[in-house]
Amino acid sequence: MSERKRRSDGERSRAAILDRASQLATVEGIEGLSIGRLAEAVGMSKSGLYAHFGSKEELQLATIETAYDIFRSAVLAPAAAASTGRERLERLTEGYLAYIERDTFAGGCFFASVLSEVDTQPGPVRDRLVAFLGEWLGLLESAIREAQAEGSLDAAEDPAQLTFEIEAAIFLANAQFVVLHDAEPIDRARRAIAKRLA
Amino acid sequence: MSERKRRSDGERSRAAILDRASQLATVEGIEGLSIGRLAEAVGMSKSGLYAHFGSKEELQLATIETAYDIFRSAVLAPAAAASTGRERLERLTEGYLAYIERDTFAGGCFFASVLSEVDTQPGPVRDRLVAFLGEWLGLLESAIREAQAEGSLDAAEDPAQLTFEIEAAIFLANAQFVVLHDAEPIDRARRAIAKRLA
Repeated sequence: MSERKRRSDGERSRAAILDRASQLATVEGIEGLSIGRLAEAVGMSKSGLYAHFGSKEELQLATIETAYDIFRSAVLAPAAAASTGRERLERLTEGYLAYIERDTFAGGCFFASVLSEVDTQPGPVRDRLVAFLGEWLGLLESAIREAQAEGSLDAAEDPAQLTFEIEAAIFLANAQFVVLHDAEPIDRARRAIAKRLA
Repeated sequence: MSERKRRSDGERSRAAILDRASQLATVEGIEGLSIGRLAEAVGMSKSGLYAHFGSKEELQLATIETAYDIFRSAVLAPAAAASTGRERLERLTEGYLAYIERDTFAGGCFFASVLSEVDTQPGPVRDRLVAFLGEWLGLLESAIREAQAEGSLDAAEDPAQLTFEIEAAIFLANAQFVVLHDAEPIDRARRAIAKRLA
């Protein structure tokens, strides 16, 4: 096997393992994501997994980056291509709701699921998730400010307060969608946001 | 020791154990609440704990009832004593926000914390928490309908939609309060709700 072929197989395998890990983390928790548990789930030996990830924490952080790539493709990239702040805001919120609605992860939004699990557990895993949350809220607030500057959103709105209210609707939609297996909370969030941005 | 004295000691001890268990569940998770882990946390033998709770699931369900009693005293009972629907609605939402703000549980709202953990894990623990959620949302919606009937809230509002929006604000306030250790999200929720009910 050539060096290139071997590296490519290793990378494909690593990607497949991390994809499974990101699904599993939203159902069984990222704290439950041990090398042993994942080895069982993907049908590999523990030593085979250790060749990819040296520790549980390394595996957890790599899983978060995989989930982030999925989220970026699904939600962030289409929003970044918007030509106005208003359009970007709508793509961010609708992109997030659609990403939940089509069951991208078995346990709802990866970041909501995993951050609620480790919110009281200091360490690099929590730090990475809190950084994600800051980026996400920052994107919403920037889009709001830009829409206000464009004149497509009421300039009297407090951008941080509006960010909170929009995030509240989509955050609850995710939680209730996972619990109820029903699209109603997604629709309620759409209605709440449309009314707030009208 | 008389029978009465012995029973009373046993009950005091059981209550103290469950109080510790309800705190621990919001930090380490209710799935992490094994007889062994709790024995370590309260400084008792595992056999001593088995005398109180026959199984992990029995312990988990008893812990939920303890948390429910705390929530009932803090939030539900004061709201039930309100003389109007509008006042009950305000007491439910403000009571919930105050219960978060004063760190009743180390990991934020017990029910939000634990339901997000077991939302994809079928069984009696999840069932009990989903029943709690139904009761809570039902109380908010009843208070809204009553306030509308009294004429103290716009009759054109869809009660289920308004319930969703109020719950969204307090649910996010809880999550952000746990992550940020800051009162700002609590204040944002207060502002969002006051504006919605104005």
